[in-house]
Amino acid sequence: MNKNYITSKDIERRGLMFVLSSPSGAGKTSLAKKLIDEEQNISMSVSMTTRKARKGEQNGKDYIFVTTEEFKQSIEKNELLEWAEVFGNHYGTPKTEVENQLKEGRDVLFDIDWQGTQQLHEKVGQDLVRVFILPPSVPVLEDRLKGRGQDDEKVVKARMKQAANQISHWAEYDYVIINDNLEESLSELKSILHAERLKRERRIGLSSFVRNMIQKM
Amino acid sequence: MNKNYITSKDIERRGLMFVLSSPSGAGKTSLAKKLIDEEQNISMSVSMTTRKARKGEQNGKDYIFVTTEEFKQSIEKNELLEWAEVFGNHYGTPKTEVENQLKEGRDVLFDIDWQGTQQLHEKVGQDLVRVFILPPSVPVLEDRLKGRGQDDEKVVKARMKQAANQISHWAEYDYVIINDNLEESLSELKSILHAERLKRERRIGLSSFVRNMIQKM
Repeated sequence: MNKNYITSKDIERRGLMFVLSSPSGAGKTSLAKKLIDEEQNISMSVSMTTRKARKGEQNGKDYIFVTTEEFKQSIEKNELLEWAEVFGNHYGTPKTEVENQLKEGRDVLFDIDWQGTQQLHEKVGQDLVRVFILPPSVPVLEDRLKGRGQDDEKVVKARMKQAANQISHWAEYDYVIINDNLEESLSELKSILHAERLKRERRIGLSSFVRNMIQKM
Repeated sequence: MNKNYITSKDIERRGLMFVLSSPSGAGKTSLAKKLIDEEQNISMSVSMTTRKARKGEQNGKDYIFVTTEEFKQSIEKNELLEWAEVFGNHYGTPKTEVENQLKEGRDVLFDIDWQGTQQLHEKVGQDLVRVFILPPSVPVLEDRLKGRGQDDEKVVKARMKQAANQISHWAEYDYVIINDNLEESLSELKSILHAERLKRERRIGLSSFVRNMIQKM
């Protein structure tokens, strides 16, 4: 704070937890990947899971692979910010790693569903920024869900029901993006991230910056 | 809502009141002008005033020029969102015009000080978005205040005290921008505007859009 001239980036800030949720088929994974690629100071949250590592997956990078016993201990010790069981496997977000990133002014991106978001919301306050991504229409969503493989009608229908269930929670989010164009949606997502970084309450270095300034006036 | 395909811009939204405050010399007026020039669907709030029109000023465009008697009646009838007396002249924001713009999904930009902002904050709720613009340093602010003319030291000093008073209210704002670079600050201001437009609570057309979507799934 001894510099005469300061840029916005010099002000210490607290990182934010940037949550993206959507039904599958709405383009969330592409958006998350592009955002991480093109932005500084934000990275994906690394989940802990009990499922087996797939080929090429690195422990500690893609996931933290643990036994069911270890996972249950983490729950008991309250070490997870949120967790869920999906098809017999456990997935969860370790608290410590996220907390360290936020303290360093780094943002953490979460690709989680409404249940995980609700759990986060209960545990964290203003660090949380929740974005819901909607498809532009039902036919578009259906096309995207079909397009993933040669699945029969029954499977697609079940996925549509799952998507409807996910979408029904849109009103629990702070921002809503309608993904009718990937580049436009990415730009909207970046605006939200940039704006949220400028929120007064996150810029914890401002208070001393302004105090010093007023003293010299 | 009968279209199969919808873009984000088709969703009806409520406009927002975008407040910019800063000490004079922080670059607020340039930023406001550029923002209005480069963005759609946002315009300056037109104030009502008792001061005489200057050469070239248009009634109803630059200001609404009224008599002191008319101004006092507006206050009594609660027709103003905020008002102040500056050097014997009254300035205020008429409620109806702003309210109509917001309903049409148009944003209104306010170039007002902390006192006006506090009055707005008391009267309106989530329609208000408050941005405070800080200079990067005291020497920079001083240079800008001097640069406006050939004022003597005493005048500059008085302006600095006024600026310090204004700056002391920074913590009453939602966002803070440090204007060390006009283009960068403009881009930050745009991010805030774009993000705020994507806030769920403002997008009043989303509810029926999602309901229709889920019914078809």
